[in-house]
Amino acid sequence: MIKREDISISVIKRLPRYYRFLGELIKKDIDRISSRELSSKMGLTASLIRQDLNCFGGFGQQGYGYNVKLLHEEIGQILGLDSSFRAIIIGAGNLGRVIATHMDFEKRGFQLIGIFDKKESMAGQLVRGMPVRHIDGLDEFCRENLPQVAILCIPAEAAFEITDALVRLGIQGFWNFTHSDLALRYPGLPVENVHLGDSLMTFCYRMKEKLEHPVSDR
Amino acid sequence: MIKREDISISVIKRLPRYYRFLGELIKKDIDRISSRELSSKMGLTASLIRQDLNCFGGFGQQGYGYNVKLLHEEIGQILGLDSSFRAIIIGAGNLGRVIATHMDFEKRGFQLIGIFDKKESMAGQLVRGMPVRHIDGLDEFCRENLPQVAILCIPAEAAFEITDALVRLGIQGFWNFTHSDLALRYPGLPVENVHLGDSLMTFCYRMKEKLEHPVSDR
Repeated sequence: MIKREDISISVIKRLPRYYRFLGELIKKDIDRISSRELSSKMGLTASLIRQDLNCFGGFGQQGYGYNVKLLHEEIGQILGLDSSFRAIIIGAGNLGRVIATHMDFEKRGFQLIGIFDKKESMAGQLVRGMPVRHIDGLDEFCRENLPQVAILCIPAEAAFEITDALVRLGIQGFWNFTHSDLALRYPGLPVENVHLGDSLMTFCYRMKEKLEHPVSDR
Repeated sequence: MIKREDISISVIKRLPRYYRFLGELIKKDIDRISSRELSSKMGLTASLIRQDLNCFGGFGQQGYGYNVKLLHEEIGQILGLDSSFRAIIIGAGNLGRVIATHMDFEKRGFQLIGIFDKKESMAGQLVRGMPVRHIDGLDEFCRENLPQVAILCIPAEAAFEITDALVRLGIQGFWNFTHSDLALRYPGLPVENVHLGDSLMTFCYRMKEKLEHPVSDR
């Protein structure tokens, strides 16, 4: 098993993508693949792929290519996908429900153990086979079940009040769909942001550039 | 107005975040802000902020700081948020509905003009005050309404069939929530991906690192 010190952050950021592509190859019963084939499928250069994957050592062989299954497993281990971090979702509105039902938590290193909302009317509704709990029961739930991470699907205005409470209750990281800048408020904790609005603005810029400069863009 | 040639891609990627922060300042009736204050609010160094914002010229003054409203407007223009690209959503399941109802399209350079699904049972249901249309009507709708971008909220397996059709029908860019690698298939078209699974895996890695190396991480 490789040590994390050997892997640069830019390689780490590409790992989920490799993992995803290799998973698709496994589904198609493909046992091995060359860096050149991976390159044409992923849009990265073959030399970058060789360089990245050489970090894990020993899986690529001249004239044979990579063992898809071994490589997939190794990358999964580096990412820690065999973990089972206890997660709760805060906010059972549309977004919270999509996240609860769409995400393959177990295969991504997490287990979803609770979902909370402040609306009385939502309490008891089933989401992913789990009853939505009223936020008033959060303290007791955390003391009993020790969730490690919180997934924030609430409006930004409400965020800090609840995140301060969550940190006091032992939450050690956030998957953050709000616009609150949590990393700055809790510098010691991992915060992974999903800013859909920023993504939409970046898309707007790229469309504008494309239409204004149709030839110079590739 | 600044020319895009003067702005590097790394600056562009930070623009949505500046825009968001400045918008929050406007809501709080804050007229001006120094690079130092922005720095402490955004977690970027003051010198990087000065360097970024100097690209737009003339808004920062020694001892005065930045004019929040002017800077917000200028960044919005660079991003093209005054555009009104005609957008359609493909897929009216949970994810498509969240995107339709949550996103502030008009303030992000887009107008949502249609939402489609292949399920007969969904046709006619109202989402954001708009009836879901059956996918069979896509050709006619596109010929009449000339949508420019498509927002893909469908399973990856179904993606290429529909995206090939969309490109033939004149779609010029994708906001892509599927796991399909569209940029590779349509190299000329802007594709902005939102890969929630990749984000969750990256979060898993960061949690694992945090728990294995609690002191060395900040």
